[in-house]
Amino acid sequence: MALAINCDMGESFGLYKMGDDAGIMPYITIANIACGFHGSDPTVMHKTVRLAKANGVKVGAHPSLPDLQGFGRREMKMDPKELTDCLIYQVGALKAFLDAEGMPLNHIKPHGALYGMAARSEEIAGAICDAADVFGVALLGMAGTKHEEVYTKRGFRFIPEFYADLDYDGDGNLILSRVHAAVDPVQAAARVLRVIREQVVRTTTGRDIAVRATTVCVHSDTPAAVAIAGELARALRQGP
Amino acid sequence: MALAINCDMGESFGLYKMGDDAGIMPYITIANIACGFHGSDPTVMHKTVRLAKANGVKVGAHPSLPDLQGFGRREMKMDPKELTDCLIYQVGALKAFLDAEGMPLNHIKPHGALYGMAARSEEIAGAICDAADVFGVALLGMAGTKHEEVYTKRGFRFIPEFYADLDYDGDGNLILSRVHAAVDPVQAAARVLRVIREQVVRTTTGRDIAVRATTVCVHSDTPAAVAIAGELARALRQGP
Amino acid sequence: MALAINCDMGESFGLYKMGDDAGIMPYITIANIACGFHGSDPTVMHKTVRLAKANGVKVGAHPSLPDLQGFGRREMKMDPKELTDCLIYQVGALKAFLDAEGMPLNHIKPHGALYGMAARSEEIAGAICDAADVFGVALLGMAGTKHEEVYTKRGFRFIPEFYADLDYDGDGNLILSRVHAAVDPVQAAARVLRVIREQVVRTTTGRDIAVRATTVCVHSDTPAAVAIAGELARALRQGP
Amino acid sequence: MALAINCDMGESFGLYKMGDDAGIMPYITIANIACGFHGSDPTVMHKTVRLAKANGVKVGAHPSLPDLQGFGRREMKMDPKELTDCLIYQVGALKAFLDAEGMPLNHIKPHGALYGMAARSEEIAGAICDAADVFGVALLGMAGTKHEEVYTKRGFRFIPEFYADLDYDGDGNLILSRVHAAVDPVQAAARVLRVIREQVVRTTTGRDIAVRATTVCVHSDTPAAVAIAGELARALRQGP
Repeated sequence: MALAINCDMGESFGLYKMGDDAGIMPYITIANIACGFHGSDPTVMHKTVRLAKANGVKVGAHPSLPDLQGFGRREMKMDPKELTDCLIYQVGALKAFLDAEGMPLNHIKPHGALYGMAARSEEIAGAICDAADVFGVALLGMAGTKHEEVYTKRGFRFIPEFYADLDYDGDGNLILSRVHAAVDPVQAAARVLRVIREQVVRTTTGRDIAVRATTVCVHSDTPAAVAIAGELARALRQGP
Repeated sequence: MALAINCDMGESFGLYKMGDDAGIMPYITIANIACGFHGSDPTVMHKTVRLAKANGVKVGAHPSLPDLQGFGRREMKMDPKELTDCLIYQVGALKAFLDAEGMPLNHIKPHGALYGMAARSEEIAGAICDAADVFGVALLGMAGTKHEEVYTKRGFRFIPEFYADLDYDGDGNLILSRVHAAVDPVQAAARVLRVIREQVVRTTTGRDIAVRATTVCVHSDTPAAVAIAGELARALRQGP
Repeated sequence: MALAINCDMGESFGLYKMGDDAGIMPYITIANIACGFHGSDPTVMHKTVRLAKANGVKVGAHPSLPDLQGFGRREMKMDPKELTDCLIYQVGALKAFLDAEGMPLNHIKPHGALYGMAARSEEIAGAICDAADVFGVALLGMAGTKHEEVYTKRGFRFIPEFYADLDYDGDGNLILSRVHAAVDPVQAAARVLRVIREQVVRTTTGRDIAVRATTVCVHSDTPAAVAIAGELARALRQGP
Repeated sequence: MALAINCDMGESFGLYKMGDDAGIMPYITIANIACGFHGSDPTVMHKTVRLAKANGVKVGAHPSLPDLQGFGRREMKMDPKELTDCLIYQVGALKAFLDAEGMPLNHIKPHGALYGMAARSEEIAGAICDAADVFGVALLGMAGTKHEEVYTKRGFRFIPEFYADLDYDGDGNLILSRVHAAVDPVQAAARVLRVIREQVVRTTTGRDIAVRATTVCVHSDTPAAVAIAGELARALRQGP
């Protein structure tokens, strides 16, 4: 069983640096590139698309709620129609940089608080589908949530992922935080291998829960993200 | 000689209203739609594109310097490469709404201070061309400026315009202001007819200067813009 | 029983106009001036403070969640400490314009979604108090909500208000909307007089509920706000 | 001759880090704290003010042109009155955090492109004075420029500075860049000592020019800023 490594990246903004995109890019197969609403700016977007191209990495759009100061990790109440337009705008902007570099848009993966909201709310997940309709690409999300249910029902190809650098609570829900804690690269790789071999992950309460996924995510702003991505890539090459 | 009426529009933002887009749309043939950096937001953009579609109006992108508070009418020093990316972003965002409605992107017309900067600077006009290269569409600008010289040299189709609601100074330069003054609809129409019949416009110093143009612009935020557009449309129907 | 008229104002932004501040100012006694996070900008703030001074109107700060596009009318999840700092920033900015004009800060009244959140959440109301501690002024809010309970417990002078241009639902809760509907000036004045004479207001379900208030609010972005304010002022002069 | 070390700081934004404020603070005597328009946010401002207080460091406001993406290092054409209001807003916001911590506002030092514009333009320097009038504090700037001429003429106390980490060109003008280059801490300290002993600095063309200053500036975003500040503090303790 092959597993793609995806990474949320391109999140620097102006003079502000976030993550080591150039360091991580060689280890991954899919880049989810920020679109300027939680991080990034036009110049960073163009640069990150070029970096992905140079590394043969597929690119998806990583749109967010409009909240630069909160890095898209604060929930906001948005009207679903307004949210759809907000996403069309961001994905269209990213697609233009892909057009400039002759690359296709591979998929869409909502960011941060929006990702979490869509995992719980059919209405929010539907608003994301309404935006994706314009582009006709796959949606990347977490298996076993409204992501999968709504996206699949709406006819989108669904790319299920799990997280190498985030924990799952006793109910099997992802523990999202505004600042990502450090994780041990070797333990992260071991967790990934276990998903491949046994299709389970251990929660913070010590229970094993089933995980179906075709890709594993590393955040570029997790401490030591390059080491984690490198260790994952090594483990996946060795295979189960 | 036929003359298209173009209008800068879609410049409302959130609860803030600017111009009467629904009122003007029936009188025009080309809409230059704001892209969120000097005015507009994703919802306004989508709505304005739909309004253009319903009225059979062609749509161009109207990107700007990033300055919402200044409505894109304050000059900023931007690195040309940074400017190019800033424009690709905006035009791509608008194009996504056109894709959503099955409409083509007709052209690009830079807004406000950027329009004025490109009329004087070969470097700025070149940065605009670099962005337009991604989309392969015509560029709309003022005849006899760097707009025409640079855009044409770079191989773009150039759509020359003049202004029904702005004056030209003694040197033949457009007088740009942050807030547009009221103009008389009948006088504006007379000025347009004179351009059609005699290819000249009178400057504020009373001199006639040659004007080559295939389209005339009305700003949606000029007072009585709907009346001006209506009067122009009536005059143009009657013809010379 | 005297009743002060307060008005949320100074909400224009750059070239965007919102409300007729100059028209309303003569009829009111208290202005709640926006601080740039849901509307307004530094120039608008200074101008509005000067306008209040010229009309002998007291000025309070009207800070908001950081959401210009949503006009502060979309709820956001903010950490209470982060919210406190966000409010200190805004009130401090307004206070500087008051200092410039030699006027005191009269009170603080949170805006929009934040006003609603503070009416329900002790934690949010407490975060507002933490910000108000820096300035030592009264807090303006709705009687019978967490506003009154928390602000009073924390030792602030509480200025209770009710709304001339918003309805109350069957549970006695204010019906907040993103765009304010038109109301009839004469009916609004009648409702206010009833509060003065009988201390009750009729809900949308036809029930009378008790209202304790020392001030009545008119929003400057409600249609016909000037007429409403004028009618209220007239009714209050006549008295009960 | 004693020389104060001042540092531009508090320039992180949301999750984005800029500079090592906690590392630099022990070595400096004056902090110029960003006010949210080129960097910083309310939470960062409050935290930085507290850090200054804990280290016994004086605090000045470091306001900027409104340009977060450009970090205030891109020139913008602003109307002087609009600029004055823009500065009153920012300084007022910072002052509120100082009030919260019981600290006085020590001075104002404009940031980035605005600093450079004020060094050349009497009108811009005057607009800064108009804002400073509200607060009645000293202005920190570069000796021998419009800073000194205009600020002094307007009756402000002028605090002249020079830069430990920026070069001066053959004409004696500071070479401002958007991203600060690395400098050697020991050479920087030697340059500072030379200013103290001989009141001269060597330009990039090898010429010595006179420098009058009572404070030396280190930017917190210059690489190795902590080492530079530490070396300067050591050199200054040893004295000439």
